[in-house]
Amino acid sequence: MLSSTSLYAAIDLGSNSFHMLVVREVAGTIQTLARIKRKVRLAAGLNSENELSPEAMERGWQCLRLFAERLQDIPQAQIRVVATATLRLATNAQQFIQQAEKILGCPIQVIRGEEEARLIYQGVAHTTGGADQRLVVDIGGASTELVTGSGAQTTALFSLSMGCVTWLERFFSDRNLTKENFDAAQAAASEVLKPVIDELRHHGWKVCVGASGTVQALQEIMMAQGMDERITLAKLQQLKQRAIQCGRLEELEIEGLTLERALVFPSGLAILIAIFEQLSIDCMTLAGGALREGLVYGMLHLTVDQEIRSRTIRNVQRRFMVDIAQAERVQQLAHAFASHVADEWDLDTLSKDMLKSAALLHEIGLSVDFKQAPLHAAYLVRNLDLPGYTPAQKKLLATLLLNQTNPVDLSSLHQQNAVPPRIAERLCRLLRLAIIFASRRRDDILPAIMLEAEGEALHLTLPENWLACHPLGAELLAQESLWQSYVHWPLTVK
Amino acid sequence: MLSSTSLYAAIDLGSNSFHMLVVREVAGTIQTLARIKRKVRLAAGLNSENELSPEAMERGWQCLRLFAERLQDIPQAQIRVVATATLRLATNAQQFIQQAEKILGCPIQVIRGEEEARLIYQGVAHTTGGADQRLVVDIGGASTELVTGSGAQTTALFSLSMGCVTWLERFFSDRNLTKENFDAAQAAASEVLKPVIDELRHHGWKVCVGASGTVQALQEIMMAQGMDERITLAKLQQLKQRAIQCGRLEELEIEGLTLERALVFPSGLAILIAIFEQLSIDCMTLAGGALREGLVYGMLHLTVDQEIRSRTIRNVQRRFMVDIAQAERVQQLAHAFASHVADEWDLDTLSKDMLKSAALLHEIGLSVDFKQAPLHAAYLVRNLDLPGYTPAQKKLLATLLLNQTNPVDLSSLHQQNAVPPRIAERLCRLLRLAIIFASRRRDDILPAIMLEAEGEALHLTLPENWLACHPLGAELLAQESLWQSYVHWPLTVK
Repeated sequence: MLSSTSLYAAIDLGSNSFHMLVVREVAGTIQTLARIKRKVRLAAGLNSENELSPEAMERGWQCLRLFAERLQDIPQAQIRVVATATLRLATNAQQFIQQAEKILGCPIQVIRGEEEARLIYQGVAHTTGGADQRLVVDIGGASTELVTGSGAQTTALFSLSMGCVTWLERFFSDRNLTKENFDAAQAAASEVLKPVIDELRHHGWKVCVGASGTVQALQEIMMAQGMDERITLAKLQQLKQRAIQCGRLEELEIEGLTLERALVFPSGLAILIAIFEQLSIDCMTLAGGALREGLVYGMLHLTVDQEIRSRTIRNVQRRFMVDIAQAERVQQLAHAFASHVADEWDLDTLSKDMLKSAALLHEIGLSVDFKQAPLHAAYLVRNLDLPGYTPAQKKLLATLLLNQTNPVDLSSLHQQNAVPPRIAERLCRLLRLAIIFASRRRDDILPAIMLEAEGEALHLTLPENWLACHPLGAELLAQESLWQSYVHWPLTVK
Repeated sequence: MLSSTSLYAAIDLGSNSFHMLVVREVAGTIQTLARIKRKVRLAAGLNSENELSPEAMERGWQCLRLFAERLQDIPQAQIRVVATATLRLATNAQQFIQQAEKILGCPIQVIRGEEEARLIYQGVAHTTGGADQRLVVDIGGASTELVTGSGAQTTALFSLSMGCVTWLERFFSDRNLTKENFDAAQAAASEVLKPVIDELRHHGWKVCVGASGTVQALQEIMMAQGMDERITLAKLQQLKQRAIQCGRLEELEIEGLTLERALVFPSGLAILIAIFEQLSIDCMTLAGGALREGLVYGMLHLTVDQEIRSRTIRNVQRRFMVDIAQAERVQQLAHAFASHVADEWDLDTLSKDMLKSAALLHEIGLSVDFKQAPLHAAYLVRNLDLPGYTPAQKKLLATLLLNQTNPVDLSSLHQQNAVPPRIAERLCRLLRLAIIFASRRRDDILPAIMLEAEGEALHLTLPENWLACHPLGAELLAQESLWQSYVHWPLTVK
């Protein structure tokens, strides 16, 4: 019995790094088994005639020998290997590919820029939440992909010849982080962008998603500095100023920026600023996946779900054997409470969606143990791969689950950066009340509850005699009022 | 759709506390939803005529009103309520029971001592690992149960009229922790034990398991003080000396002893010492469950598994969707390695069983995420309810899973107290090597490996050319030698 029949591998031979992703299909979802990355720096081996040096080829082959050993155990039909910009460009690419295919024991496709863009879009569509009319931006080592689409369908696909490695060599070859170098890099990027702007704008988008090392680095910087996770032009400009202050590439130091990403960060930043300016982008968030995920989901023939977050929730509920009826009950109560207080506490779509997600997942900690179940729930949500949720959203969910009962840890609600602290507190209070009233796991005995908000004060009105007839409920509510009062959340019960 | 049809509740009205256990049946296993305990101290309400005071009754009824609200949502056939020693004894028990049944809305059985002993045995048999010929000891508030049995079958059942509450009142009523008081308590306990000793000895046992607050307190004390978890007469005598040094009950202070358990700890200790002495018990470990678990498993009609640890492992593998073929592969390799080094590294049955368990569970962390999977595996094992494994064994397993790859955290291997540190290190090394050689998830390509131990040095002999033909394997082994060398574990590869 070989379990390897459920294994899939996607390899991309990029201009900067080679990557291998190995996944296992489990109950219709994808479990990642390995992500291997080697900085092969193929692009650096191209000379002015676009010939790949023997040394660069050898670096690539060496890396593929490692990958090959893992691949042997995966059925051929479940492996896809693609090569991108540098091997599109190299005049002697065929020489590299022939030997590489011998090493891997399977065919390598050098994909066209448009195919790369399409795969990136598929990877994003399968892993990223939010509105489904989107612009996807992926800044690679030697090419940048820009794609608009809606749901699983792309509407415009562009692969442009600029990347963070090539822009580094062209505009920062003196290793100086001057305003002049940045401006030249941005200007050149704007020129490259010009021909495609009209068509992208014509198709339009509701959300903009970034899927490259540059955007990942930005995400890490913003998390480390306690900012919210929305990338804006203002933040990019600030980081550019900070880089200029550092003076030299080798002296670049920004809180949250890792050494590994530092070298190509300024060039990627310049390209990203040009994209923001040319396309008038308000804000961008990090995608949950890109090229390799597109390859894997493509092999698995999974359809793109309109509601990726719902699919994720359903999968997690099933995997951790959540009492789904109870999760729904709490979700509906929380939703009802949110609408009771809608006038006073205006919660936006994202906040309501996070409340819903928290309600639907609040019991997953029971799959570990009922003792400290909220702690286990928070641990799981913090660490699970949740397609459709950004890192900041996962942190918010974990915080809400941690605070679903027992005394409130206010600082944790304030440390997340997906929504303002005040909003996190409100979501937390609605979730806690929903859990209390649903605690009997029955629909038919829910009391007619009125909830009113007056500033941060909550007034709960129950049917006459309800408290007298429900000693356990009354005890829970009395305890809850006390806990809420400890963190200065006024809660009155009538 | 009411999910409550999968809910079960067991309530016991004990002499010291009332307990409620609510569980959910999920995929043939039990998920605990709530454990509620209220110190009703019913026994303290008995006067010299064995009449229960109105105040004690009211305390009991008050507690049951809380329980009742939870019970309403559970089908009658899935609830069992039993009352033990104090209500067996009380002359006006019927008055209490009538009102209590009205409050709960379901019948209460006052069970005989032998039935209590039988249920305790069942609870132990369903939740406790080790050899299946056992002696079970449960020291309650007003009675002590002693049972021998084999597998699911009891062979001798006794319920004796002594308990930690009654012995507290009889021998420590002056609250002095003197040698005299202890000796009197032990002597009286020995008298009570005399009539049953011969029959218990006649049936015999291979393991002795304790299932009461006293034994739980001992477990907590030993964990807090870094001792191994085997309760021995020497340790009990030490704790008695320590208690005598404290002088007064209100001044009793032992590292790891909680306030909640302190009051009845000396009296329970005296009874336990008498049991150890009269029955010549070598060592005792904590049971995974007792009366309430017996009630719940009885309602669920689950059969007692001969191999409770195997059942637990299978359930966890299924719940966390482990690649079972791979788990088996690693287990068999680890087992083979252990037999290669058997002459030099004598591993006892428990150690081998822990190595097997660790191998079978090593990938559960992947169910959370492949990033830091060993950390997730350790978190899960530390927190999961694992019938058949003691707390110290769970800690050892967690430590082995944490150290299944990457640099070794030696201190964690030394902080567990299930096996000596040196043994934990050896198990860790065997597990790590098994994982490396099984990493291709195939049986047919495993090399013929020879493993030899020479003191703590390990020599690994591989077929000729194996390293040259397996660059990934060679890289893994080179890395592993390095990691092992960091913690001074000599590993040579030929």
